[in-house]
Amino acid sequence: MALVECIPNFSEGRRQPVIDAIVSAIASAPVDVLDASSDVDHNRTVVTFVGEPEAVAEAAFRGIEVATREIDLTQHAGVHPRVGAADVVPFVPLRDYSVTECVALVRNLGQRVGESLSVPVFLYEEAAVHQDRRDLSYIRRGGYEGLGERIGLPEWQPDYGPSQLGTAGAAVIGVRKILIAFNAYLDTTDVQIAQAIAYKIRASGGGLPFVKAIGVMVGGVAQVSMNVVDFQQTSLYTAMRELRAAAALFGVQITRTELIGLIPQAALLDYALESLQLPLTTRSQVLEARLGSVTGDYRPLEFE
Amino acid sequence: MALVECIPNFSEGRRQPVIDAIVSAIASAPVDVLDASSDVDHNRTVVTFVGEPEAVAEAAFRGIEVATREIDLTQHAGVHPRVGAADVVPFVPLRDYSVTECVALVRNLGQRVGESLSVPVFLYEEAAVHQDRRDLSYIRRGGYEGLGERIGLPEWQPDYGPSQLGTAGAAVIGVRKILIAFNAYLDTTDVQIAQAIAYKIRASGGGLPFVKAIGVMVGGVAQVSMNVVDFQQTSLYTAMRELRAAAALFGVQITRTELIGLIPQAALLDYALESLQLPLTTRSQVLEARLGSVTGDYRPLEFE
Repeated sequence: MALVECIPNFSEGRRQPVIDAIVSAIASAPVDVLDASSDVDHNRTVVTFVGEPEAVAEAAFRGIEVATREIDLTQHAGVHPRVGAADVVPFVPLRDYSVTECVALVRNLGQRVGESLSVPVFLYEEAAVHQDRRDLSYIRRGGYEGLGERIGLPEWQPDYGPSQLGTAGAAVIGVRKILIAFNAYLDTTDVQIAQAIAYKIRASGGGLPFVKAIGVMVGGVAQVSMNVVDFQQTSLYTAMRELRAAAALFGVQITRTELIGLIPQAALLDYALESLQLPLTTRSQVLEARLGSVTGDYRPLEFE
Repeated sequence: MALVECIPNFSEGRRQPVIDAIVSAIASAPVDVLDASSDVDHNRTVVTFVGEPEAVAEAAFRGIEVATREIDLTQHAGVHPRVGAADVVPFVPLRDYSVTECVALVRNLGQRVGESLSVPVFLYEEAAVHQDRRDLSYIRRGGYEGLGERIGLPEWQPDYGPSQLGTAGAAVIGVRKILIAFNAYLDTTDVQIAQAIAYKIRASGGGLPFVKAIGVMVGGVAQVSMNVVDFQQTSLYTAMRELRAAAALFGVQITRTELIGLIPQAALLDYALESLQLPLTTRSQVLEARLGSVTGDYRPLEFE
């Protein structure tokens, strides 16, 4: 059975009734909502849901519809860059579904959002029609305000929908790999240190490939907010090692971290193996994997 | 369905036909053999198998029977302490089976081994009748030779079987928690450094509770061979951190590590979370765990 994940990021992390309305709209389609994380400082909510492809596209549409109606970007404040109410809507094929099939699904959804909700839609990553729009940060540069200024230009015509931003802004919809979203809190209140660390480790600053990072201020402390966009290319271990090294270089330490949304088991297991100096082939020595392969029962063992 | 794991350690890691005969005997019962790891230096083989309780006890008996016939401890050399052909035979209740039930199963097996194979059997850990025999290393002190000298003493009468050692030595059979067996290679050829590190970190040296460790020489390099016997009490992260700290104290480094047998997923996931400075509640953010709880399908996602 084909299984697709969708992880839309909505520009609302404070008004609980709006968050609830979005999540309810998604859950009204035959999908399983796995997670919904709201962040007051980022003023964003990330919902994770899975299901069969058509159901997932329908659920995404319903969530975008509510967000478009309820969120006004001209009134929105938050530390995270954003261009729309349903700011980014990534799809990830999980099982028995190809990237090509998923791209077709997502382009149909984009067309529906553009035409029936009058929201400009930009297709990104694997779903991009224009190759320069593969990169989300390129589309989102300058946020709602920046995109509003250039959306009238011929080269910025959206893939679907009107060439102007309403209060709901634009939606960036695409197909990508599983992404790990990870925030590290520093023992400093100087956001410039977080920004310098972020610049040093991220791909666009000449740091690690497949790593994005920004420095922000959250709850009075500096935070490096990171994405590892392909953990098979740049492992979580490498990202964390370089983050710690960069922090040390600027004389600060990581006090704690947090994971936004969900993480595939393999990313954590591989982290453990690399950090323990075990060969990656040790993966096959995980008891539940071995049990599953002979009994078909992959449930994790429980330890009280 | 009740599920029990058995992880017998046999004192043969070199003669492949003998190893094959033991594994075949185990696999001739209706169990699933998950792993068999032989080590030439330790001259030991660890077999891991699972199944329903009675079948697991039967498989263990068949393996012990072959080992008793084929392995002569008077001819055995190896860096690992041992008292018998089927040196240690631990049982671990995995699902839907209590420690009490498992102890009864193991004592029946012990009686059968003692009486029908004429092998002295010592019950250890949860299965121990004599409380001073809970500790495996206490029973195994001095190895085959040491036990041979004291087995005639009243306080060393075995729980089952004769009060003297034949060529197959004794079998130590018990019920315990899942154990993590882990070897770390050092960048030194001085085994005394490995021994000093082992002494510093192990419980019996005043180090970490629930950690056993010895220093041995393997393939010309010094190795710390460790057991974490209760990873919920002393985590793999704590054990590794202290191991690294002790190595640094003696001016050496860990070049690589290896895992013997299998490891429960939770031990590696918790290691990753602790090392990443994530709260342990992040466990619930593992995608497959979340997927499994809504779809019943806990299979790990595959990444090509």
